[in-house]
Amino acid sequence: MFHPIKDVKVYELVIEQIKNMIIEGKLKRGDKLPSERELVEQLQVSRASIREALSALQIIGLIESRHGEGNFIKEKLDNNFLEPLSTLFLLEEQSPKEILEFRTILEVSSAAMAAKNATTEQILMLQNVVKDLEENRKDEDLNIKLDKKFHYTIAQITGNRLLYNILNSISDLIDISIKYTRSKILMDPKNQEILIEQHKGIFAAIAKGDPELASERMKSHLDYVNKCIIEQEQKRLSSF
Amino acid sequence: MFHPIKDVKVYELVIEQIKNMIIEGKLKRGDKLPSERELVEQLQVSRASIREALSALQIIGLIESRHGEGNFIKEKLDNNFLEPLSTLFLLEEQSPKEILEFRTILEVSSAAMAAKNATTEQILMLQNVVKDLEENRKDEDLNIKLDKKFHYTIAQITGNRLLYNILNSISDLIDISIKYTRSKILMDPKNQEILIEQHKGIFAAIAKGDPELASERMKSHLDYVNKCIIEQEQKRLSSF
Repeated sequence: MFHPIKDVKVYELVIEQIKNMIIEGKLKRGDKLPSERELVEQLQVSRASIREALSALQIIGLIESRHGEGNFIKEKLDNNFLEPLSTLFLLEEQSPKEILEFRTILEVSSAAMAAKNATTEQILMLQNVVKDLEENRKDEDLNIKLDKKFHYTIAQITGNRLLYNILNSISDLIDISIKYTRSKILMDPKNQEILIEQHKGIFAAIAKGDPELASERMKSHLDYVNKCIIEQEQKRLSSF
Repeated sequence: MFHPIKDVKVYELVIEQIKNMIIEGKLKRGDKLPSERELVEQLQVSRASIREALSALQIIGLIESRHGEGNFIKEKLDNNFLEPLSTLFLLEEQSPKEILEFRTILEVSSAAMAAKNATTEQILMLQNVVKDLEENRKDEDLNIKLDKKFHYTIAQITGNRLLYNILNSISDLIDISIKYTRSKILMDPKNQEILIEQHKGIFAAIAKGDPELASERMKSHLDYVNKCIIEQEQKRLSSF
């Protein structure tokens, strides 16, 4: 099963072996890992290295420690297991433009997939988000949350868990992106109604089960957001 | 700068504070972190918790430890910092279908973006991959690598680093997906020439700078891959 390790960066090798067992299908969701003591014996590394590896695996959300029972491969994935990517990307320049571009790629297709797959229940869920957006015009903090919820609900309706997981993995980035873009767009107050209409339009196309219309409207929406930001940026520059 | 923490899951709180400093722009690429001792004092937690947090941050590739110098926010991001997602997704059922669907979304757009942005140097790089694919028909292990390299080179040419980073973050999944899909497709030997022609066609559209043709050809390629897999699956089932 496990084989001994003799080298530096020991915890990485421990993680590698656990990962390989998952790839080979030997460890599955909910399975119990060997105890710390068993891992020390089987892998012939220090208890400290095993602990280091286990806590790292907890942090990335692959395993959970149940009190008095030991360590288990998680049954249900956390939504935030990938947040490190967000943090890393914040270290890059030019991120707002690239985030919006990336969102456009994912979300234009997602809207079409959602229009194909949405159940009545999911349509109602999305309708409620749109209704909340309409009824809370004055609470921008809430609107940021609702705006994000709208887009994440669509990603969920696609039924593609990799897509949804990846979008969740960059949740921090999307937060910052939505907050930033809305603040730029709403410098022109008439845009609030336009944004609401755009969200209603996307919702209507999904509810109607019209994939082409849904993706077309999502594209118009995100292109409009992009256009507003470029305009605001130009205004800002020309005011110097 | 840092403020004291008094609670359980201490290493997570340590990570949270470091992450926030990055979000706020107080820590940048290449910056040195306070020493372990300073962190113990500033955050008022045990040295063990600090170590646990630091090694987790190393594992996710956010910081690096330089011998005798201390810990630094990484200058250059690793390509594999996100591999945990791959491992997690392998625990899901139905992953091959969803991976291919996700790739189709990303790569159809990527092909168009690459056709818009490719420099002469990048076109030559992509051409070399296609040439290698043509000249190594018998070495399937090499072909798997080249096939992957072809798609990753296109993602890189898009110039969108978030897209490229995310594709790198699921590198294990893409490996498995390409290996799996090629093995299914090549059960019919005539498909090797078809695959080579498809890759040449995508390359030619990018080299010509024709975004529509490039995305159309990428879509045909991935749709063909999908069709072959479904057919092989049906054959397998009907042979029982």
